[in-house]
Amino acid sequence: MNDKLSGAARTEALDKLQAAGWSMVEGRDAISKLFKFKDFTRAFGWMTQAAIAAEKMNHHPEWSNTYNRVEVTLTSHDAEGLTDRDVKLAGIMDGLA
Amino acid sequence: MNDKLSGAARTEALDKLQAAGWSMVEGRDAISKLFKFKDFTRAFGWMTQAAIAAEKMNHHPEWSNTYNRVEVTLTSHDAEGLTDRDVKLAGIMDGLA
Repeated sequence: MNDKLSGAARTEALDKLQAAGWSMVEGRDAISKLFKFKDFTRAFGWMTQAAIAAEKMNHHPEWSNTYNRVEVTLTSHDAEGLTDRDVKLAGIMDGLA
Repeated sequence: MNDKLSGAARTEALDKLQAAGWSMVEGRDAISKLFKFKDFTRAFGWMTQAAIAAEKMNHHPEWSNTYNRVEVTLTSHDAEGLTDRDVKLAGIMDGLA
């Protein structure tokens, strides 16, 4: 699937993501964000909600968790870069946090 | 809490963990294992079971997930190394997988 973000749509999407705390991953066409919660239960509860949303989209994050912290990286492996699916999943994750 | 594994008990515990697929993390007194599942739902379902067990023990993993893979690292931050709690959580995770 080649729906990689490009041109003005990409610039606009990245501006919004960066304003929401996402940043570009060095050396990859991917975005990442560190989410912090009060404790493990709240961190994992959020991951569970995000996991269900991701599965419904059939678009999955790379993520790691240590206690109350979740580091998320989003990219579209099939497109080898950022797509609308990453923008959508980022928005859902922000909305759930 | 200083209940770091040592001596014969440590040797015996590490032998059993290594036989079960765990390995020492380079440069840390920690163990890690890569768990692979059929798909994301099964990987995250296992994480959810392990998360509940970890919260009950008040002993939490460092872990990362990408689609059907979960990389787990266990250590006891308060003891600055491996303890019985890591051995117990490793056993629970293996039992759930």
